[in-house]
Amino acid sequence: MTPGATDGPAPRRRGRGRPSRTADIAGPDARTRILQAARTEFAERGYDRTSIRGVAKAAGVDPALVHHYFGTKDEVFAAAVEVSFEPALVVSEILDGPSDAMGERLARFFIGVWENPVTRAPLLAILRSALTHEAAAAVLRGFVLSRLLERVAAELEVPDPTFRAELAASHMLGVAILRYVVQAEPLASVDPERIIAMVAPTLQRYLGDA
Amino acid sequence: MTPGATDGPAPRRRGRGRPSRTADIAGPDARTRILQAARTEFAERGYDRTSIRGVAKAAGVDPALVHHYFGTKDEVFAAAVEVSFEPALVVSEILDGPSDAMGERLARFFIGVWENPVTRAPLLAILRSALTHEAAAAVLRGFVLSRLLERVAAELEVPDPTFRAELAASHMLGVAILRYVVQAEPLASVDPERIIAMVAPTLQRYLGDA
Repeated sequence: MTPGATDGPAPRRRGRGRPSRTADIAGPDARTRILQAARTEFAERGYDRTSIRGVAKAAGVDPALVHHYFGTKDEVFAAAVEVSFEPALVVSEILDGPSDAMGERLARFFIGVWENPVTRAPLLAILRSALTHEAAAAVLRGFVLSRLLERVAAELEVPDPTFRAELAASHMLGVAILRYVVQAEPLASVDPERIIAMVAPTLQRYLGDA
Repeated sequence: MTPGATDGPAPRRRGRGRPSRTADIAGPDARTRILQAARTEFAERGYDRTSIRGVAKAAGVDPALVHHYFGTKDEVFAAAVEVSFEPALVVSEILDGPSDAMGERLARFFIGVWENPVTRAPLLAILRSALTHEAAAAVLRGFVLSRLLERVAAELEVPDPTFRAELAASHMLGVAILRYVVQAEPLASVDPERIIAMVAPTLQRYLGDA
């Protein structure tokens, strides 16, 4: 299928990538469609079985356009990770507020992201890929470090802020795995507020105490 | 390859399974070899690509013997999980001791299990399988609940002991994933004692406080 054959709305503006005739034809909607397709493909097929060709087909564009916007498969994965983590990138807003309630705000925010199936699915997919493929782990490692944890750490007034941010993240990650993947009871079906009530003081101690 | 063709020591006693001519020939060493082979196969190939035939071949026994001792593939997986978690099953011994230092004993114990490559590898393999296959997750869920967490919870004098034991387990699990799988720095290379020092008070609060 060629870019011109897609049935999305007609492109009006150029995409954010390098300008080219192909991008002109496909438009910015194609970029969004490719990212959505990549997220779905990585989620459903896993890292190994996802190909640029498959992503292109699911997005209804030419594989060359995927290469044009994102480059290699690893770079497509990185872009899909970034889109999936977008809700987590508002973390700095959550850090604004009374510092003695930061643990609760963070716990509530992360539980909210995991509680929502729309945001949970891509996070789980990324986690699965990272646990089974070193290339995916490397992408996640670079992204989590450079975009997420260091951004949180920059706001903290504690020694070793990145280490402490990682400890907080590790707890939320573990809760997510036991609750949503392993589905260990009673954790899997307990009211989210009860998790927040128990976990918030832990995050507060890691992120707020000197 | 038939059981008689293996080059292990000659069997002298009967295995713990139902007595049968096959088991007589193979002996209890075959059972151990099958479990070790299953652990390696699930670790290296993942849940999907591991077969009873493959486990039998790696153990140097007839597939019928694997069926005889363990039953279905799920049951082989469950037995491999149980062997891998054996170090964790001494948890009740760790619970014996001053109750105000239980958090530190548990943190030290779990970090020790994950720090040792011999015990870490099968745990990671099981985790990977559980994250990618519902059948493996179900086995882990049943096992973790019935053998590990409820055993810890029975020793605790707190409300909702299983929930609290799960919260403690979730934290250790998340630390293990970020440190050993995602390898996020500085968590990945920090001295284990620094992790224990930070995590112990958290576990103490979950498991020791009312």
